[in-house]
Amino acid sequence: MMLNHAEDCIARCRALALHTEEPGFTTRTFLSPWMHAVHGDLIQWMRDSGMSVSVDAVGNLRGRYAPATADAPVFWIGSHLDTVPHAGAFDGILGVVLGVKLVQLLSGHPLPFAIEVVGFSEEEGVRFGFPFIGSLALIGQLNPAATALIAGAVRDFGLNPTDPVAMTDASLGYLEFHIEQGPVLENLGLPLGIVEAIAGQTRMQIIFEGKAGHAGTTPMNLRHDALACAAEWICEVEEHAGKTFGMVATVGKLEVHPGAPNVIPGTVKLTLDVRHQMDATRRHGAASMLDAAHRIAHRRGLSVSSAITLDQAAVPLDAQLAQALARAVERSGHAVHCMMSGAGHDAMVIARAMPAAMLFLRSPGGLSHHPEESVLVEDVASALSVGMNFLENLA
Amino acid sequence: MMLNHAEDCIARCRALALHTEEPGFTTRTFLSPWMHAVHGDLIQWMRDSGMSVSVDAVGNLRGRYAPATADAPVFWIGSHLDTVPHAGAFDGILGVVLGVKLVQLLSGHPLPFAIEVVGFSEEEGVRFGFPFIGSLALIGQLNPAATALIAGAVRDFGLNPTDPVAMTDASLGYLEFHIEQGPVLENLGLPLGIVEAIAGQTRMQIIFEGKAGHAGTTPMNLRHDALACAAEWICEVEEHAGKTFGMVATVGKLEVHPGAPNVIPGTVKLTLDVRHQMDATRRHGAASMLDAAHRIAHRRGLSVSSAITLDQAAVPLDAQLAQALARAVERSGHAVHCMMSGAGHDAMVIARAMPAAMLFLRSPGGLSHHPEESVLVEDVASALSVGMNFLENLA
Repeated sequence: MMLNHAEDCIARCRALALHTEEPGFTTRTFLSPWMHAVHGDLIQWMRDSGMSVSVDAVGNLRGRYAPATADAPVFWIGSHLDTVPHAGAFDGILGVVLGVKLVQLLSGHPLPFAIEVVGFSEEEGVRFGFPFIGSLALIGQLNPAATALIAGAVRDFGLNPTDPVAMTDASLGYLEFHIEQGPVLENLGLPLGIVEAIAGQTRMQIIFEGKAGHAGTTPMNLRHDALACAAEWICEVEEHAGKTFGMVATVGKLEVHPGAPNVIPGTVKLTLDVRHQMDATRRHGAASMLDAAHRIAHRRGLSVSSAITLDQAAVPLDAQLAQALARAVERSGHAVHCMMSGAGHDAMVIARAMPAAMLFLRSPGGLSHHPEESVLVEDVASALSVGMNFLENLA
Repeated sequence: MMLNHAEDCIARCRALALHTEEPGFTTRTFLSPWMHAVHGDLIQWMRDSGMSVSVDAVGNLRGRYAPATADAPVFWIGSHLDTVPHAGAFDGILGVVLGVKLVQLLSGHPLPFAIEVVGFSEEEGVRFGFPFIGSLALIGQLNPAATALIAGAVRDFGLNPTDPVAMTDASLGYLEFHIEQGPVLENLGLPLGIVEAIAGQTRMQIIFEGKAGHAGTTPMNLRHDALACAAEWICEVEEHAGKTFGMVATVGKLEVHPGAPNVIPGTVKLTLDVRHQMDATRRHGAASMLDAAHRIAHRRGLSVSSAITLDQAAVPLDAQLAQALARAVERSGHAVHCMMSGAGHDAMVIARAMPAAMLFLRSPGGLSHHPEESVLVEDVASALSVGMNFLENLA
């Protein structure tokens, strides 16, 4: 039975993915005209499932399922409705669809708390280069500059930018279902993962400055090759991260100057991205990697300059909600796997205002932000079972 | 006394460097109008030194110093007059200036052979993307396509492209003085080096194909990072060349795709340049490096594709002339250092037609193809002493 509901969820996600700015791809940015069509489909289904619906002043779609008694607190379930360019059908919107499906499965039986399913208008940061607009507005932390930046788009969408957005009811907590966007669960053969924390990030730009030279006339022992130096260092970065549990480190961008086949590289500019759920571990790791850069460069007669471009703290999610999720996962017959999220999510913002939890669904091939991003119907069914179990227990 | 002559040579090179297409820089390509001015200055000096002068049909400047007896063979001394863009004052033209100076130092006393000082019109390949035009024409090996390619430029310079160029007299040999363009002699504290061979070259393009992924959500052990793979390989390339006497290997160009700080590199394209004076050693080295690329990529779950873009054989220079040079270096009071040239030179072409020799002068800072390229006056004086000694012994 749950498999049919899971199939319905996937079919709805695929149908919603057709509301796009670019035919043939799914591209749907903050408050674009195609978001109206998404709202239209979801509003109909929310109403059919017994919810009252509103769109707030930043374009968050909010469906409220009334509690057994008035003045009861709210439990939130949500994720985002916007996408990156050329996206898949599940990143974000699956969490909203699962929220509505859970309410539908309640069949009108009220719980001792209200459920508010929220489809955040903006998380990816594509349209204004500023992410998390929907969730920041919900908790009253969208700053005035951002509010001013988006005012025109809000008006064009038919909303009044001066209307209040921030939630007012007492909140029990927040649950976000999201595809993992990585290969961990698939590799473990597990459908679901409980997110303990959103990793913190250090980003650096590092420049190795050596000496350009003629590739034919400069013997190996007289070189100050910036690329050979960077290569040795990249191997150390990889080794350091590989032996530090839970750490990831990436050199994603690297430029060689002058960049000719017969010229020894004089300069290499590259980026380093280090993530870990413990800030101290991350900062120590990044510092060790920078030390290694200086040590290797010094031995080779090169110089190093560096700048930290981002130092974003980790966000722990709520331990009690995570335990409640873990019990629900166990009851659904699956092994419990706790993990960090290496990417940011709305839950990271909402966690500032209330207990927040996240449940990851396995991403086949680790794919996301890609047209072939998918979910398995069995995994969606498991997520629905866990969600029902979790809500019943909370009640 | 020789120091004064050396100072004169340096002053002449610096004056000739002012004949340039770009004020403030020395840029003088094949048969450009500014080459007329260079010819004018050199022709005057050649005539004053007792030579008869001609410019052949590809623009080579040829000054002939008559022998003691008619029908005696010719000994050639030369190098090139063209430059790369933003060049220094010595690469090429110093070898021509030293040739004229040696004739001047003979003070009209004839030798049992003619001396022909040749300023090759083209070596760098800048104007037509085709190097060694002057020396190829001299030995009658400029192919018809190249001859046709340059015909307009030849006419514009005031020459007749159908006139014969190739030398006809019997030749004893060829000597080229040239700056080293590398740091070896400076590092050894020596003014001069005798070139045994022009290194052969292998150039390859190699592509490492891994899997792009999210830098935050993909654990280290599940990555197929093309840049980390390339880095490990670059370290092996450097190690292999470093422990193979006389080999140089360079990764000069490297591109990372997609090339974003928060995306694991999926593809790396790079170039490999391997040089050695023994072709078998070079080819074995390049093959070992390619094997290493496949081995490392296979272990990491990546694929490799490669293409050899150049496989140019080494050119050994004449051993007897090298020995004669070595004796002259010893008599001038300096240690003999034999070396390979990692760059191509006119001597490499001329060696197809007659015994050829090269003498390198120390390059301060290893600099060449650079406005700050220089020579030391003492080194020029030593080169002149060696040249005089060499000619006297040949006589």
